[in-house]
Amino acid sequence: MFSPNDHAMMQRAISLAKRGRYTTAPNPNVGCVIAHGETIVGEGFHYQAGQPHAEVFALRAAGEQARGATAYVTLEPCSHYGRTPPCAEALVKAGVARVVCAMVDPNPKVAGRGIAILQAAGIEVQSGLLEADAEALNPGFIKRMKTGMPFVQLKLASSLDGRTALANGESKWITGPAARADVQRLRACAGAILSTSATVLADDPSLNVRWDELGAQVQEMYPQQNLRQPVRVIIDSKNRVTPEHRLCSLPSEIVLVRHSDDGEQWPDHVRSLLLPQASADQAGIDLKAMMAALAQQDINHIWVEAGAGLAGALLSAGLVDELIVYQAPKLMGSDSRGLIGLRGLTAMEQVPELAISDLRMVGGDIRITAAIKQH
Amino acid sequence: MFSPNDHAMMQRAISLAKRGRYTTAPNPNVGCVIAHGETIVGEGFHYQAGQPHAEVFALRAAGEQARGATAYVTLEPCSHYGRTPPCAEALVKAGVARVVCAMVDPNPKVAGRGIAILQAAGIEVQSGLLEADAEALNPGFIKRMKTGMPFVQLKLASSLDGRTALANGESKWITGPAARADVQRLRACAGAILSTSATVLADDPSLNVRWDELGAQVQEMYPQQNLRQPVRVIIDSKNRVTPEHRLCSLPSEIVLVRHSDDGEQWPDHVRSLLLPQASADQAGIDLKAMMAALAQQDINHIWVEAGAGLAGALLSAGLVDELIVYQAPKLMGSDSRGLIGLRGLTAMEQVPELAISDLRMVGGDIRITAAIKQH
Repeated sequence: MFSPNDHAMMQRAISLAKRGRYTTAPNPNVGCVIAHGETIVGEGFHYQAGQPHAEVFALRAAGEQARGATAYVTLEPCSHYGRTPPCAEALVKAGVARVVCAMVDPNPKVAGRGIAILQAAGIEVQSGLLEADAEALNPGFIKRMKTGMPFVQLKLASSLDGRTALANGESKWITGPAARADVQRLRACAGAILSTSATVLADDPSLNVRWDELGAQVQEMYPQQNLRQPVRVIIDSKNRVTPEHRLCSLPSEIVLVRHSDDGEQWPDHVRSLLLPQASADQAGIDLKAMMAALAQQDINHIWVEAGAGLAGALLSAGLVDELIVYQAPKLMGSDSRGLIGLRGLTAMEQVPELAISDLRMVGGDIRITAAIKQH
Repeated sequence: MFSPNDHAMMQRAISLAKRGRYTTAPNPNVGCVIAHGETIVGEGFHYQAGQPHAEVFALRAAGEQARGATAYVTLEPCSHYGRTPPCAEALVKAGVARVVCAMVDPNPKVAGRGIAILQAAGIEVQSGLLEADAEALNPGFIKRMKTGMPFVQLKLASSLDGRTALANGESKWITGPAARADVQRLRACAGAILSTSATVLADDPSLNVRWDELGAQVQEMYPQQNLRQPVRVIIDSKNRVTPEHRLCSLPSEIVLVRHSDDGEQWPDHVRSLLLPQASADQAGIDLKAMMAALAQQDINHIWVEAGAGLAGALLSAGLVDELIVYQAPKLMGSDSRGLIGLRGLTAMEQVPELAISDLRMVGGDIRITAAIKQH
């Protein structure tokens, strides 16, 4: 059904889509190539929400040459009037003869409508080419569209023996500068960074993306004026964060997840997400309700940087999709502090299991990427 | 000084040497290639202690063609009458014109004597080609020759968060079958497997190499009748191991490291290594004295499989050269049992640092190889 040339063209479209990964949130990453056989006549990718979609850039570049061509798109062209007119109609108008999609729109309410518009105009449409690679471009967007919940990445950093700090709390610089730069890049891909008031009180972090630390390759694709800061979400059930904490001094959006508002004068970029107690006998925030509420606010992809307590609670609640573990080549010993506050396991059948999807060195540290197998 | 052809020939000799890695202990792995220019006329490797050295096999294969040839040897040819006559003299007799060694004999008492015999006979000798690769063939032999201490590899297996068992002790099958087969192969390379009576009492292990689990590739090189069992060394300061423990039912050699003999009737393959207490105020075996005594008994390379206690004690005493850590893709949480009994660290400067030398998947598990940086 798909020729080697189709594969090569879609591969190109996927590469283009990746260029938007620091900027498109909450929109998906999409790439488009328009070609006659092996000759590319136009290409484009979605760069930023509010700007044109990938197909529009590619059609502009192709001009009259779009007529009779094949359009390769990593996601089914949209069928609705949003900030831009529907791409399916633009492809019809331009006179393309054939459209190949890597995947249909994951939103069950709209899936197939873009394809239907194309087919109604007599265009040949095929779907499913390099679908897994296309899905990997947008795990957050796809999960939210399908389930109403965000894709959650849990970042952990430890010694080789799974420790985060000595018994007395000392822990500075467990991982090296390359791993810290890697964290900056992964933060930059997320829609939100999730942490807790415990972390804010202990370390007073900024929890932002620092352009200076992204590295030359990313900086080139992503000039400083285009820096999109993820929303900083802080679980603060006891209202312990104050306007004086360092993160509040930076202007990007902050969401304090609380049970009730306090009487403080907060700057405009700080708002509350108020959630009731999980249950009468359980203190603290209902994490599942929190995640659903964040997804409602168009947050696709959450990057979690917090302590062992939140890590364990999210894992126990089945709310983590992927672990990113940095391991420094150090040994801290068994009375040092543990990585994950999972307690009370009594049988190996209860132990959360993972599937390693990527393993590499980042500077002198190890980085492990693992998907959670939900029991 | 060395041509591309010299490099290629020595690379071949190193590949040959590796074929002996399951069988040569306590002898080193050595390979030899005899060539005229790019034409190999004979090659060989040392297969088993008591059998001829690599040079002898290569000279036999070359026959008259050795005359005027270059011999590439991964280790300086021996100069002493041992179980075989000295290889340096055999090379002289065969009339080779040039000898290239990857490294000189690491034993300071003999280093250079083989080369001197060759040079005295008018043979051109060069040394140092691919020296680091040749050293990596025999870390144990080289360390013992240079320092009188064995090379110590510490094997650890844990969950991704550095845990070995649940709080109640449950731990069966943390790593998968591919990792367990890998352990069998690494055990098979060692001169001794070191464990403790605590492990013997808890798990009643055999601590042997099981030919059935080595995999087809190794089995082909290493037929079952050639199986060399590493010496099993058990630290047993309180004389708790008895002839009824499973490891005693297998005929390969066992060394019980104790303070004193007991009155038991032990089979012939079980003997004691008696060592005094480390000091008046410190109970238990003096680990440094134990390692020196094992090296005196021609043990080059020790593979340690034990619990967190011995792991921590060996690391604290600076007796570990390399860590082999298997991490299963599981999370066991902070009240599970820790990997390394290193206690009382109060500053990050005291934390043992490592350098990762290899990182790979073994089945579904991660294997990390790391050298210890001695402070």
